Amino acid sequence: MTDLWLIGIGTGNPDHVTGEARKALNEARTVLMPLKGAGKDDLADLRYRILSESGRSARVVEFEMPVRDDTLPYTERVRRWHDEIAARWREAMDGAEGPVALLVWGDPSLYDSTLRIAERLDPAPRLRVVPGITSLQVLTAAHAIPLNRVGAPVTVTTGRRLRDHGWPAGADTVAVMLDGECSFQSLDSAGLTIWWGAYLGMENELLETGPLAEAGPRIVALRDKARARHGWIMDVYLLRREGGA
Amino acid sequence: MTDLWLIGIGTGNPDHVTGEARKALNEARTVLMPLKGAGKDDLADLRYRILSESGRSARVVEFEMPVRDDTLPYTERVRRWHDEIAARWREAMDGAEGPVALLVWGDPSLYDSTLRIAERLDPAPRLRVVPGITSLQVLTAAHAIPLNRVGAPVTVTTGRRLRDHGWPAGADTVAVMLDGECSFQSLDSAGLTIWWGAYLGMENELLETGPLAEAGPRIVALRDKARARHGWIMDVYLLRREGGA
Repeated sequence: MTDLWLIGIGTGNPDHVTGEARKALNEARTVLMPLKGAGKDDLADLRYRILSESGRSARVVEFEMPVRDDTLPYTERVRRWHDEIAARWREAMDGAEGPVALLVWGDPSLYDSTLRIAERLDPAPRLRVVPGITSLQVLTAAHAIPLNRVGAPVTVTTGRRLRDHGWPAGADTVAVMLDGECSFQSLDSAGLTIWWGAYLGMENELLETGPLAEAGPRIVALRDKARARHGWIMDVYLLRREGGA
Repeated sequence: MTDLWLIGIGTGNPDHVTGEARKALNEARTVLMPLKGAGKDDLADLRYRILSESGRSARVVEFEMPVRDDTLPYTERVRRWHDEIAARWREAMDGAEGPVALLVWGDPSLYDSTLRIAERLDPAPRLRVVPGITSLQVLTAAHAIPLNRVGAPVTVTTGRRLRDHGWPAGADTVAVMLDGECSFQSLDSAGLTIWWGAYLGMENELLETGPLAEAGPRIVALRDKARARHGWIMDVYLLRREGGA
């Protein structure tokens, strides 16, 4: 049985790495390194930088990430994509000395597919998960705000769900992830405040905040410009309703 | 203007500490150390251990945490308690050299009062927040499960709200924090699975999981026994509904 370690590394700032993650990277014998193709090389570079700072001696096995078939319906598209990634892991792990490690952006538990891909491996590996700082935590830290109001709930959701279902029932604070379309534009902005961030923890970090009616259009413009310049963007935001719970 | 750094340190395992937190602890000139009284000394000990491992040279200023007046209504009780803590911070910071640091359990953004207490300081300090690993992340890592289902939302809430309002409307996965009363007992357990953990990240970590109908009573018994043995307990859990979003 192979030991497979899924190691959260935070959001791009090598200083997000915890002592536990650093030790795990140092003890792993093999590291699987996904290559995402042109425009996303920043991410592989950061992984290599974090690896070298951990003082590791592991063998690095690179593999090409498959491309998602965007013509398929969402669930089917994600399922097939995960199947294909699992096949590439198997290939990359063939004959590899364990423990085998994967560096996971943010935390392996939060809107990340690594655990679901690991479930597809047969024989099943012995899994270890090392938590990492998420973009949501870097967002609230950068704005110096709490995630929740006193004793109040927080709904963490996706851009797609915000567009399809609107403001979640009973929600006070909504954190939105995986949103490529500034889905806050689909909401009635009255009484909503937004705290937004992109490239969180990285050198080119961008922050914006204010009443949604005013800050929303600024964010749309800023986001377009930044994506054009860098070739990619990762962003996340928090919305809070006046009054609240 | 004083620099006040709120530094997330994770949940009791010194290996949760990030590189950013370690550096900040090392650069701070003064550290405010809350003493919570008998039965909670484990926590102060851990803070001292983390401090000493960061190689710090800061002056440590201890202060006694005030006691909450449990006869007051919840909101009023919390408001007054935060006022009193802010007064003790002011006293402890009087004449202290900056940057002044506070070690915050978990992450300063998640069900933590530190940011709200800092807002009460006058003159306002210049705030810096360093994110830390939360108990929720240690829980999902220990169980090797994702927080969310694919593309589905997560509601983070409190034991009190679960008791008062039942299963949150539209929720798929519910993470429950600040629950001293095993409030999952107030739910209809049909179709619910629970993943529970106490003393997460610490040597005496406890884990339990299963269908709520079966695991719930085991958790109640385990929790009572552990609290009696240690004099205190901190726990958190995740509930997921079959079928889901």
